[in-house]
Amino acid sequence: MDEKLQRYFNNDRFAAMCGLEIVECRPGYSRVQVQINDSHLNGAGYVHGGLLFTLADFCLGTAANAYGHIALSVNSNITFIAKSSGGTLIAEAVEIGRSNPLFTYDVNIFSETGELLAHFTGMAYKTQREIDI
Amino acid sequence: MDEKLQRYFNNDRFAAMCGLEIVECRPGYSRVQVQINDSHLNGAGYVHGGLLFTLADFCLGTAANAYGHIALSVNSNITFIAKSSGGTLIAEAVEIGRSNPLFTYDVNIFSETGELLAHFTGMAYKTQREIDI
Amino acid sequence: MDEKLQRYFNNDRFAAMCGLEIVECRPGYSRVQVQINDSHLNGAGYVHGGLLFTLADFCLGTAANAYGHIALSVNSNITFIAKSSGGTLIAEAVEIGRSNPLFTYDVNIFSETGELLAHFTGMAYKTQREIDI
Amino acid sequence: MDEKLQRYFNNDRFAAMCGLEIVECRPGYSRVQVQINDSHLNGAGYVHGGLLFTLADFCLGTAANAYGHIALSVNSNITFIAKSSGGTLIAEAVEIGRSNPLFTYDVNIFSETGELLAHFTGMAYKTQREIDI
Repeated sequence: MDEKLQRYFNNDRFAAMCGLEIVECRPGYSRVQVQINDSHLNGAGYVHGGLLFTLADFCLGTAANAYGHIALSVNSNITFIAKSSGGTLIAEAVEIGRSNPLFTYDVNIFSETGELLAHFTGMAYKTQREIDI
Repeated sequence: MDEKLQRYFNNDRFAAMCGLEIVECRPGYSRVQVQINDSHLNGAGYVHGGLLFTLADFCLGTAANAYGHIALSVNSNITFIAKSSGGTLIAEAVEIGRSNPLFTYDVNIFSETGELLAHFTGMAYKTQREIDI
Repeated sequence: MDEKLQRYFNNDRFAAMCGLEIVECRPGYSRVQVQINDSHLNGAGYVHGGLLFTLADFCLGTAANAYGHIALSVNSNITFIAKSSGGTLIAEAVEIGRSNPLFTYDVNIFSETGELLAHFTGMAYKTQREIDI
Repeated sequence: MDEKLQRYFNNDRFAAMCGLEIVECRPGYSRVQVQINDSHLNGAGYVHGGLLFTLADFCLGTAANAYGHIALSVNSNITFIAKSSGGTLIAEAVEIGRSNPLFTYDVNIFSETGELLAHFTGMAYKTQREIDI
Protein backbone atom coordinates (compact mmCIF):
# COMPACT_ATOMS: atom_id res chain seq x y z
CA MET A 1 0.00 0.00 0.00
CA ASP A 2 0.99 3.59 -0.71
CA GLU A 3 2.69 5.37 2.24
CA LYS A 4 0.30 8.34 2.27
CA LEU A 5 -2.63 5.97 2.35
CA GLN A 6 -1.02 3.98 5.14
CA ARG A 7 -0.51 7.14 7.20
CA TYR A 8 -4.10 8.18 6.53
CA PHE A 9 -5.49 4.85 7.74
CA ASN A 10 -3.14 4.87 10.75
CA ASN A 11 -4.60 8.24 11.62
CA ASP A 12 -8.04 6.62 12.12
CA ARG A 13 -8.00 6.66 15.91
CA PHE A 14 -11.38 5.03 16.39
CA ALA A 15 -10.40 2.10 14.16
CA ALA A 16 -7.19 1.82 16.19
CA MET A 17 -9.04 1.84 19.51
CA CYS A 18 -11.31 -0.91 18.14
CA GLY A 19 -8.27 -3.01 17.18
CA LEU A 20 -9.01 -3.17 13.43
CA GLU A 21 -6.22 -4.42 11.15
CA ILE A 22 -6.11 -4.07 7.36
CA VAL A 23 -5.34 -7.42 5.77
CA GLU A 24 -5.53 -6.41 2.12
CA CYS A 25 -6.48 -3.14 0.47
CA ARG A 26 -6.64 -1.90 -3.08
CA PRO A 27 -8.95 0.49 -4.97
CA GLY A 28 -12.43 -0.97 -4.74
CA TYR A 29 -11.58 -3.93 -2.54
CA SER A 30 -10.51 -4.43 1.04
CA ARG A 31 -10.32 -6.97 3.85
CA VAL A 32 -10.07 -5.95 7.49
CA GLN A 33 -9.94 -8.16 10.57
CA VAL A 34 -10.38 -7.77 14.31
CA GLN A 35 -9.50 -10.10 17.16
CA ILE A 36 -12.44 -10.02 19.56
CA ASN A 37 -11.76 -9.27 23.20
CA ASP A 38 -13.91 -8.34 26.18
CA SER A 39 -14.00 -4.64 25.29
CA HIS A 40 -15.98 -5.51 22.13
CA LEU A 41 -18.90 -7.15 23.92
CA ASN A 42 -22.37 -5.82 24.68
CA GLY A 43 -24.41 -6.33 27.82
CA ALA A 44 -25.66 -9.72 26.64
CA GLY A 45 -22.11 -10.96 26.09
CA TYR A 46 -22.18 -10.88 22.28
CA VAL A 47 -19.98 -8.86 19.94
CA HIS A 48 -21.51 -5.37 19.86
CA GLY A 49 -23.38 -4.28 16.74
CA GLY A 50 -21.42 -1.03 16.93
CA LEU A 51 -18.13 -2.91 16.62
CA LEU A 52 -19.46 -4.91 13.67
CA PHE A 53 -20.67 -1.73 11.98
CA THR A 54 -17.32 -0.03 12.61
CA LEU A 55 -15.50 -3.00 11.11
CA ALA A 56 -17.70 -2.87 7.98
CA ASP A 57 -17.53 0.91 7.68
CA PHE A 58 -13.75 1.01 8.02
CA CYS A 59 -13.45 -1.82 5.50
CA LEU A 60 -15.57 0.13 3.00
CA GLY A 61 -13.55 3.27 3.79
CA THR A 62 -10.19 1.68 3.07
CA ALA A 63 -11.44 0.30 -0.26
CA ALA A 64 -12.99 3.61 -1.30
CA ASN A 65 -10.11 5.79 -0.12
CA ALA A 66 -7.55 3.59 -1.87
CA TYR A 67 -8.39 5.49 -5.09
CA GLY A 68 -6.51 8.44 -3.57
CA HIS A 69 -9.27 10.90 -2.67
CA ILE A 70 -11.02 11.21 0.67
CA ALA A 71 -14.38 9.42 0.46
CA LEU A 72 -16.91 9.82 3.27
CA SER A 73 -19.79 7.49 4.17
CA VAL A 74 -23.20 8.96 3.52
CA ASN A 75 -25.53 6.05 4.15
CA SER A 76 -25.21 2.51 5.43
CA ASN A 77 -27.49 -0.38 6.12
CA ILE A 78 -26.51 -3.36 8.22
CA THR A 79 -28.34 -6.61 8.90
CA PHE A 80 -27.21 -8.78 11.77
CA ILE A 81 -27.47 -12.40 10.70
CA ALA A 82 -25.79 -14.43 13.45
CA LYS A 83 -24.39 -13.71 16.90
CA SER A 84 -20.77 -14.17 17.84
CA SER A 85 -18.80 -13.81 21.02
CA GLY A 86 -15.13 -14.29 20.18
CA GLY A 87 -12.39 -15.28 17.77
CA THR A 88 -11.12 -13.31 14.78
CA LEU A 89 -13.74 -11.68 12.59
CA ILE A 90 -13.05 -10.68 9.02
CA ALA A 91 -14.81 -8.17 6.81
CA GLU A 92 -14.60 -8.09 3.03
CA ALA A 93 -15.68 -5.03 1.02
CA VAL A 94 -16.53 -5.36 -2.66
CA GLU A 95 -17.45 -2.41 -4.87
CA ILE A 96 -20.80 -3.03 -6.53
CA GLY A 97 -21.38 0.38 -8.09
CA ARG A 98 -19.52 3.52 -9.03
CA SER A 99 -21.18 6.55 -10.49
CA ASN A 100 -19.12 9.61 -9.67
CA PRO A 101 -19.06 10.93 -7.01
CA LEU A 102 -20.90 8.00 -5.36
CA PHE A 103 -19.43 4.56 -4.64
CA THR A 104 -21.50 1.63 -3.40
CA TYR A 105 -20.02 -1.30 -1.49
CA ASP A 106 -21.24 -4.58 -0.15
CA VAL A 107 -19.45 -5.69 2.98
CA ASN A 108 -19.83 -9.13 4.53
CA ILE A 109 -18.52 -9.98 7.97
CA PHE A 110 -17.53 -13.57 8.67
CA SER A 111 -16.57 -15.49 11.79
CA GLU A 112 -13.36 -17.49 11.96
CA THR A 113 -15.23 -20.54 10.70
CA GLY A 114 -16.65 -18.67 7.73
CA GLU A 115 -20.16 -18.11 9.09
CA LEU A 116 -21.83 -14.94 7.79
CA LEU A 117 -22.42 -12.68 10.81
CA ALA A 118 -23.54 -9.46 9.18
CA HIS A 119 -24.28 -8.03 5.76
CA PHE A 120 -23.73 -4.33 5.11
CA THR A 121 -24.37 -2.08 2.12
CA GLY A 122 -22.86 1.39 2.20
CA MET A 123 -22.49 4.41 0.01
CA ALA A 124 -19.51 6.77 0.09
CA TYR A 125 -19.14 10.19 -1.43
CA LYS A 126 -15.81 11.00 -3.07
CA THR A 127 -14.56 14.45 -2.15
CA GLN A 128 -12.12 16.56 -4.20
CA ARG A 129 -9.60 16.35 -1.37
CA GLU A 130 -6.59 14.18 -2.13
CA ILE A 131 -5.18 11.99 0.62
CA ASP A 132 -1.94 13.68 1.56
CA ILE A 133 -1.13 13.83 5.24
CA MET B 1 -33.78 3.13 36.48
CA ASP B 2 -34.17 -0.42 37.77
CA GLU B 3 -30.97 -1.89 39.31
CA LYS B 4 -30.93 -5.02 37.12
CA LEU B 5 -31.25 -2.84 34.06
CA GLN B 6 -28.48 -0.57 35.29
CA ARG B 7 -26.19 -3.56 35.80
CA TYR B 8 -27.08 -4.88 32.37
CA PHE B 9 -26.21 -1.58 30.69
CA ASN B 10 -23.02 -1.25 32.76
CA ASN B 11 -22.04 -4.66 31.45
CA ASP B 12 -21.94 -3.25 27.89
CA ARG B 13 -18.17 -3.05 27.61
CA PHE B 14 -18.07 -1.63 24.10
CA ALA B 15 -20.40 1.23 25.07
CA ALA B 16 -18.14 1.85 28.10
CA MET B 17 -14.98 1.92 25.96
CA CYS B 18 -16.73 4.41 23.65
CA GLY B 19 -17.59 6.64 26.63
CA LEU B 20 -21.37 6.51 26.21
CA GLU B 21 -23.50 7.81 29.09
CA ILE B 22 -27.23 7.24 29.55
CA VAL B 23 -28.99 10.53 30.26
CA GLU B 24 -32.56 9.29 30.42
CA CYS B 25 -34.05 5.87 29.83
CA ARG B 26 -37.51 4.40 30.05
CA PRO B 27 -39.41 1.75 28.07
CA GLY B 28 -39.58 2.99 24.48
CA TYR B 29 -37.51 6.13 24.95
CA SER B 30 -33.89 6.92 25.68
CA ARG B 31 -31.26 9.63 25.47
CA VAL B 32 -27.54 8.86 25.48
CA GLN B 33 -24.61 11.25 25.21
CA VAL B 34 -20.91 11.08 24.48
CA GLN B 35 -18.18 13.60 24.96
CA ILE B 36 -16.01 13.49 21.84
CA ASN B 37 -12.28 13.02 22.26
CA ASP B 38 -9.43 12.12 19.92
CA SER B 39 -10.08 8.39 20.16
CA HIS B 40 -13.43 8.91 18.40
CA LEU B 41 -12.01 10.46 15.23
CA ASN B 42 -11.45 8.94 11.80
CA GLY B 43 -8.50 9.53 9.46
CA ALA B 44 -10.01 12.75 8.11
CA GLY B 45 -10.36 14.18 11.62
CA TYR B 46 -14.16 13.86 11.88
CA VAL B 47 -16.16 11.85 14.39
CA HIS B 48 -16.14 8.26 13.08
CA GLY B 49 -19.31 6.85 11.55
CA GLY B 50 -18.75 3.78 13.70
CA LEU B 51 -18.92 5.83 16.88
CA LEU B 52 -22.10 7.56 15.69
CA PHE B 53 -23.66 4.21 14.83
CA THR B 54 -22.65 2.77 18.22
CA LEU B 55 -24.21 5.77 19.96
CA ALA B 56 -27.48 5.29 18.04
CA ASP B 57 -27.51 1.53 18.47
CA PHE B 58 -26.86 1.70 22.21
CA CYS B 59 -29.54 4.38 22.55
CA LEU B 60 -32.06 2.14 20.77
CA GLY B 61 -30.89 -0.79 22.91
CA THR B 62 -31.45 0.98 26.21
CA ALA B 63 -34.96 2.06 25.16
CA ALA B 64 -35.89 -1.41 23.91
CA ASN B 65 -34.35 -3.31 26.82
CA ALA B 66 -36.03 -1.06 29.36
CA TYR B 67 -39.17 -3.20 28.93
CA GLY B 68 -37.30 -5.91 30.85
CA HIS B 69 -36.47 -8.50 28.17
CA ILE B 70 -33.27 -8.70 26.17
CA ALA B 71 -33.87 -7.18 22.76
CA LEU B 72 -31.25 -7.57 20.02
CA SER B 73 -30.75 -5.39 16.94
CA VAL B 74 -31.57 -7.13 13.71
CA ASN B 75 -31.31 -4.34 11.14
CA SER B 76 -30.26 -0.72 11.13
CA ASN B 77 -29.94 2.05 8.62
CA ILE B 78 -27.98 5.22 9.24
CA THR B 79 -27.68 8.36 7.16
CA PHE B 80 -24.87 10.77 7.91
CA ILE B 81 -26.20 14.31 7.52
CA ALA B 82 -23.47 16.61 8.82
CA LYS B 83 -19.88 16.20 9.96
CA SER B 84 -18.68 16.94 13.45
CA SER B 85 -15.32 16.92 15.18
CA GLY B 86 -15.90 17.61 18.85
CA GLY B 87 -18.16 18.61 21.71
CA THR B 88 -20.88 16.56 23.35
CA LEU B 89 -23.16 14.63 21.05
CA ILE B 90 -26.59 13.46 22.08
CA ALA B 91 -28.76 10.69 20.68
CA GLU B 92 -32.50 10.39 21.21
CA ALA B 93 -34.38 7.15 20.50
CA VAL B 94 -38.13 7.20 19.95
CA GLU B 95 -40.20 4.07 19.41
CA ILE B 96 -42.17 4.36 16.17
CA GLY B 97 -43.53 0.83 15.94
CA ARG B 98 -44.12 -2.24 18.05
CA SER B 99 -45.48 -5.45 16.70
CA ASN B 100 -44.31 -8.28 18.90
CA PRO B 101 -41.56 -9.45 18.80
CA LEU B 102 -40.27 -6.56 16.66
CA PHE B 103 -39.67 -2.99 17.85
CA THR B 104 -38.80 -0.13 15.50
CA TYR B 105 -36.99 3.00 16.64
CA ASP B 106 -35.96 6.26 15.09
CA VAL B 107 -32.78 7.69 16.55
CA ASN B 108 -31.50 11.18 15.83
CA ILE B 109 -28.03 12.34 16.80
CA PHE B 110 -27.49 16.01 17.49
CA SER B 111 -24.45 18.18 18.06
CA GLU B 112 -24.14 20.40 21.11
CA THR B 113 -25.75 23.23 19.16
CA GLY B 114 -28.69 21.08 18.12
CA GLU B 115 -27.59 20.39 14.55
CA LEU B 116 -28.81 17.03 13.20
CA LEU B 117 -25.71 14.93 12.51
CA ALA B 118 -27.20 11.54 11.73
CA HIS B 119 -30.56 9.86 11.37
CA PHE B 120 -30.92 6.18 12.22
CA THR B 121 -33.79 3.71 11.96
CA GLY B 122 -33.36 0.35 13.66
CA MET B 123 -35.30 -2.75 14.40
CA ALA B 124 -34.84 -4.89 17.49
CA TYR B 125 -36.08 -8.38 18.21
CA LYS B 126 -37.37 -9.07 21.71
CA THR B 127 -36.14 -12.37 23.09
CA GLN B 128 -37.84 -14.43 25.83
CA ARG B 129 -34.82 -13.88 28.06
CA GLU B 130 -35.48 -11.56 31.01
CA ILE B 131 -32.80 -9.11 32.03
CA ASP B 132 -31.46 -10.53 35.27
CA ILE B 133 -27.72 -10.39 35.77
CA MET C 1 -47.09 24.64 -8.41
CA ASP C 2 -45.01 25.72 -11.39
CA GLU C 3 -46.33 24.50 -14.77
CA LYS C 4 -43.08 22.85 -15.84
CA LEU C 5 -42.97 20.98 -12.56
CA GLN C 6 -46.59 19.94 -12.98
CA ARG C 7 -45.87 18.60 -16.46
CA TYR C 8 -42.80 16.77 -15.17
CA PHE C 9 -44.78 15.05 -12.40
CA ASN C 10 -47.63 14.25 -14.80
CA ASN C 11 -45.08 12.54 -16.99
CA ASP C 12 -44.39 10.01 -14.20
CA ARG C 13 -46.31 7.14 -15.76
CA PHE C 14 -45.67 4.64 -12.97
CA ALA C 15 -46.99 7.06 -10.35
CA ALA C 16 -50.03 7.59 -12.56
CA MET C 17 -50.66 3.84 -12.96
CA CYS C 18 -50.44 3.53 -9.16
CA GLY C 19 -53.02 6.30 -8.73
CA LEU C 20 -50.81 8.68 -6.75
CA GLU C 21 -52.05 12.25 -6.28
CA ILE C 22 -49.98 15.21 -5.11
CA VAL C 23 -51.76 17.03 -2.29
CA GLU C 24 -49.13 19.66 -1.51
CA CYS C 25 -45.67 20.22 -2.89
CA ARG C 26 -42.96 22.80 -2.33
CA PRO C 27 -39.16 22.68 -2.26
CA GLY C 28 -38.21 20.31 0.55
CA TYR C 29 -41.72 19.27 1.51
CA SER C 30 -44.48 17.22 -0.07
CA ARG C 31 -47.63 15.27 0.66
CA VAL C 32 -48.98 12.62 -1.70
CA GLN C 33 -52.03 10.41 -1.30
CA VAL C 34 -53.44 7.27 -2.86
CA GLN C 35 -56.87 5.71 -2.67
CA ILE C 36 -56.37 1.99 -2.19
CA ASN C 37 -58.12 -0.37 -4.56
CA ASP C 38 -57.80 -4.08 -5.36
CA SER C 39 -54.91 -3.56 -7.78
CA HIS C 40 -52.73 -2.40 -4.86
CA LEU C 41 -53.02 -5.59 -2.83
CA ASN C 42 -50.56 -8.44 -2.39
CA GLY C 43 -51.32 -12.16 -2.20
CA ALA C 44 -52.19 -11.95 1.49
CA GLY C 45 -54.75 -9.18 0.84
CA TYR C 46 -52.72 -6.34 2.36
CA VAL C 47 -51.49 -3.19 0.61
CA HIS C 48 -48.33 -4.22 -1.26
CA GLY C 49 -44.97 -3.07 0.10
CA GLY C 50 -44.09 -2.05 -3.46
CA LEU C 51 -47.04 0.35 -3.57
CA LEU C 52 -46.07 1.83 -0.18
CA PHE C 53 -42.47 2.24 -1.34
CA THR C 54 -43.61 3.87 -4.59
CA LEU C 55 -45.79 6.28 -2.63
CA ALA C 56 -42.87 7.25 -0.38
CA ASP C 57 -40.37 7.47 -3.24
CA PHE C 58 -42.65 9.64 -5.37
CA CYS C 59 -43.38 11.85 -2.36
CA LEU C 60 -39.63 12.34 -1.77
CA GLY C 61 -39.17 12.93 -5.50
CA THR C 62 -41.74 15.68 -5.72
CA ALA C 63 -40.23 17.48 -2.70
CA ALA C 64 -36.67 17.17 -4.03
CA ASN C 65 -37.53 18.07 -7.64
CA ALA C 66 -39.51 21.12 -6.56
CA TYR C 67 -36.19 22.97 -6.30
CA GLY C 68 -36.13 22.94 -10.12
CA HIS C 69 -33.43 20.40 -10.96
CA ILE C 70 -33.92 16.72 -11.62
CA ALA C 71 -33.04 14.78 -8.46
CA LEU C 72 -32.76 10.99 -8.60
CA SER C 73 -33.08 8.52 -5.71
CA VAL C 74 -29.85 6.78 -4.86
CA ASN C 75 -30.70 4.87 -1.70
CA SER C 76 -33.82 4.21 0.34
CA ASN C 77 -34.72 2.30 3.44
CA ILE C 78 -38.28 1.41 4.38
CA THR C 79 -39.65 -0.18 7.52
CA PHE C 80 -43.15 -1.59 7.47
CA ILE C 81 -44.80 -0.82 10.79
CA ALA C 82 -48.45 -1.79 10.40
CA LYS C 83 -50.53 -3.55 7.77
CA SER C 84 -53.38 -1.93 5.90
CA SER C 85 -55.91 -3.11 3.36
CA GLY C 86 -57.90 -0.10 2.22
CA GLY C 87 -58.85 3.54 2.54
CA THR C 88 -56.81 6.58 1.56
CA LEU C 89 -53.15 6.53 2.51
CA ILE C 90 -51.09 9.68 2.82
CA ALA C 91 -47.34 10.15 2.66
CA GLU C 92 -45.49 13.18 4.00
CA ALA C 93 -41.88 13.93 3.01
CA VAL C 94 -39.74 16.22 5.17
CA GLU C 95 -36.20 17.22 4.25
CA ILE C 96 -33.84 16.36 7.09
CA GLY C 97 -30.51 17.07 5.40
CA ARG C 98 -29.08 18.88 2.42
CA SER C 99 -25.44 18.83 1.53
CA ASN C 100 -25.07 19.46 -2.16
CA PRO C 101 -25.60 17.41 -4.27
CA LEU C 102 -27.27 15.07 -1.75
CA PHE C 103 -30.68 15.57 -0.16
CA THR C 104 -32.02 13.38 2.65
CA TYR C 105 -35.72 12.96 3.37
CA ASP C 106 -37.82 11.23 5.96
CA VAL C 107 -41.15 10.03 4.67
CA ASN C 108 -43.93 8.70 6.86
CA ILE C 109 -46.98 6.94 5.48
CA PHE C 110 -50.21 7.15 7.44
CA SER C 111 -53.57 5.44 7.17
CA GLU C 112 -56.79 7.42 7.00
CA THR C 113 -57.04 7.27 10.78
CA GLY C 114 -53.51 8.56 11.27
CA GLU C 115 -51.84 5.27 12.09
CA LEU C 116 -48.18 5.10 11.02
CA LEU C 117 -47.93 2.34 8.40
CA ALA C 118 -44.37 2.78 7.15
CA HIS C 119 -41.29 4.87 7.79
CA PHE C 120 -38.91 5.61 4.94
CA THR C 121 -35.57 7.41 4.74
CA GLY C 122 -34.23 8.22 1.30
CA MET C 123 -31.39 10.05 -0.33
CA ALA C 124 -31.62 11.84 -3.67
CA TYR C 125 -28.85 13.13 -5.88
CA LYS C 126 -29.42 16.50 -7.54
CA THR C 127 -28.37 16.50 -11.18
CA GLN C 128 -27.37 19.58 -13.21
CA ARG C 129 -30.38 19.01 -15.47
CA GLU C 130 -33.13 21.61 -15.04
CA ILE C 131 -36.73 20.49 -15.17
CA ASP C 132 -37.99 21.78 -18.49
CA ILE C 133 -40.23 19.50 -20.49
CA MET D 1 -44.27 -25.10 -8.14
CA ASP D 2 -46.98 -26.24 -5.73
CA GLU D 3 -50.53 -25.31 -6.84
CA LYS D 4 -51.45 -23.52 -3.61
CA LEU D 5 -48.31 -21.43 -3.88
CA GLN D 6 -49.06 -20.66 -7.53
CA ARG D 7 -52.57 -19.50 -6.61
CA TYR D 8 -51.17 -17.40 -3.77
CA PHE D 9 -48.70 -15.65 -6.06
CA ASN D 10 -51.36 -15.19 -8.77
CA ASN D 11 -53.45 -13.45 -6.13
CA ASP D 12 -50.80 -10.71 -5.85
CA ARG D 13 -52.68 -8.08 -7.81
CA PHE D 14 -50.03 -5.37 -7.55
CA ALA D 15 -47.37 -7.71 -8.93
CA ALA D 16 -49.77 -8.58 -11.76
CA MET D 17 -50.47 -4.92 -12.57
CA CYS D 18 -46.70 -4.35 -12.68
CA GLY D 19 -46.28 -7.24 -15.13
CA LEU D 20 -43.97 -9.34 -12.94
CA GLU D 21 -43.37 -12.96 -14.00
CA ILE D 22 -41.84 -15.70 -11.83
CA VAL D 23 -39.06 -17.46 -13.74
CA GLU D 24 -37.90 -19.84 -11.03
CA CYS D 25 -38.95 -20.25 -7.42
CA ARG D 26 -38.01 -22.61 -4.63
CA PRO D 27 -37.65 -22.23 -0.84
CA GLY D 28 -34.93 -19.63 -0.29
CA TYR D 29 -34.32 -18.77 -3.92
CA SER D 30 -36.27 -17.01 -6.66
CA ARG D 31 -35.93 -15.24 -9.99
CA VAL D 32 -38.55 -12.84 -11.29
CA GLN D 33 -38.55 -10.82 -14.50
CA VAL D 34 -40.41 -7.88 -15.97
CA GLN D 35 -40.60 -6.55 -19.50
CA ILE D 36 -40.34 -2.78 -19.26
CA ASN D 37 -43.00 -0.68 -20.96
CA ASP D 38 -44.02 2.97 -20.81
CA SER D 39 -46.16 2.50 -17.70
CA HIS D 40 -43.00 1.67 -15.69
CA LEU D 41 -41.22 4.95 -16.35
CA ASN D 42 -40.78 7.99 -14.12
CA GLY D 43 -40.90 11.66 -15.13
CA ALA D 44 -37.29 11.61 -16.27
CA GLY D 45 -37.92 8.66 -18.60
CA TYR D 46 -36.11 6.04 -16.52
CA VAL D 47 -37.52 2.89 -14.95
CA HIS D 48 -39.20 4.01 -11.71
CA GLY D 49 -37.50 3.18 -8.42
CA GLY D 50 -40.89 2.01 -7.19
CA LEU D 51 -41.09 -0.61 -9.95
CA LEU D 52 -37.55 -1.80 -9.17
CA PHE D 53 -38.38 -2.04 -5.48
CA THR D 54 -41.60 -3.93 -6.24
CA LEU D 55 -39.66 -6.37 -8.43
CA ALA D 56 -37.13 -6.99 -5.65
CA ASP D 57 -39.75 -7.23 -2.92
CA PHE D 58 -41.90 -9.67 -4.87
CA CYS D 59 -38.83 -11.73 -5.71
CA LEU D 60 -37.91 -11.94 -1.99
CA GLY D 61 -41.55 -12.72 -1.19
CA THR D 62 -41.77 -15.66 -3.57
CA ALA D 63 -38.53 -17.15 -2.20
CA ALA D 64 -39.60 -16.69 1.43
CA ASN D 65 -43.18 -17.86 0.94
CA ALA D 66 -42.06 -20.95 -0.94
CA TYR D 67 -41.42 -22.58 2.46
CA GLY D 68 -45.21 -22.77 2.82
CA HIS D 69 -46.00 -20.12 5.43
CA ILE D 70 -46.96 -16.50 4.77
CA ALA D 71 -43.88 -14.33 5.27
CA LEU D 72 -44.26 -10.55 5.33
CA SER D 73 -41.57 -7.93 4.61
CA VAL D 74 -40.58 -5.93 7.65
CA ASN D 75 -37.64 -3.88 6.42
CA SER D 76 -35.90 -3.31 3.10
CA ASN D 77 -33.01 -1.26 1.83
CA ILE D 78 -32.42 -0.57 -1.84
CA THR D 79 -29.51 1.12 -3.57
CA PHE D 80 -29.94 2.28 -7.13
CA ILE D 81 -26.71 1.61 -9.01
CA ALA D 82 -27.45 2.31 -12.66
CA LYS D 83 -30.34 3.77 -14.64
CA SER D 84 -32.31 1.83 -17.20
CA SER D 85 -35.13 2.68 -19.58
CA GLY D 86 -36.21 -0.53 -21.28
CA GLY D 87 -35.72 -4.21 -22.04
CA THR D 88 -36.33 -7.15 -19.73
CA LEU D 89 -35.10 -6.79 -16.17
CA ILE D 90 -34.42 -9.77 -13.95
CA ALA D 91 -34.25 -9.99 -10.17
CA GLU D 92 -32.57 -12.80 -8.26
CA ALA D 93 -33.22 -13.37 -4.54
CA VAL D 94 -30.75 -15.35 -2.45
CA GLU D 95 -31.31 -16.19 1.22
CA ILE D 96 -28.36 -14.99 3.27
CA GLY D 97 -29.71 -15.58 6.75
CA ARG D 98 -32.44 -17.47 8.55
CA SER D 99 -33.06 -17.24 12.23
CA ASN D 100 -36.66 -18.07 12.98
CA PRO D 101 -38.93 -16.20 12.48
CA LEU D 102 -36.72 -13.80 10.46
CA PHE D 103 -35.38 -14.44 6.96
CA THR D 104 -32.84 -12.17 5.26
CA TYR D 105 -32.44 -11.97 1.50
CA ASP D 106 -30.14 -10.22 -0.91
CA VAL D 107 -31.78 -9.33 -4.19
CA ASN D 108 -29.90 -8.05 -7.22
CA ILE D 109 -31.63 -6.59 -10.27
CA PHE D 110 -29.93 -6.90 -13.62
CA SER D 111 -30.57 -5.44 -17.04
CA GLU D 112 -30.86 -7.64 -20.12
CA THR D 113 -27.13 -7.27 -20.69
CA GLY D 114 -26.28 -8.30 -17.13
CA GLU D 115 -25.57 -4.84 -15.74
CA LEU D 116 -26.35 -4.49 -12.03
CA LEU D 117 -29.12 -1.90 -11.72
CA ALA D 118 -30.06 -2.17 -8.06
CA HIS D 119 -29.03 -4.00 -4.91
CA PHE D 120 -31.62 -4.77 -2.26
CA THR D 121 -31.44 -6.34 1.19
CA GLY D 122 -34.70 -7.27 2.85
CA MET D 123 -35.98 -8.99 5.92
CA ALA D 124 -39.20 -11.00 6.10
CA TYR D 125 -41.09 -12.24 9.11
CA LYS D 126 -42.56 -15.73 8.91
CA THR D 127 -46.10 -15.90 10.25
CA GLN D 128 -47.83 -19.03 11.61
CA ARG D 129 -50.35 -18.80 8.76
CA GLU D 130 -49.96 -21.55 6.14
CA ILE D 131 -50.45 -20.69 2.51
CA ASP D 132 -53.77 -22.28 1.62
CA ILE D 133 -56.08 -20.28 -0.59
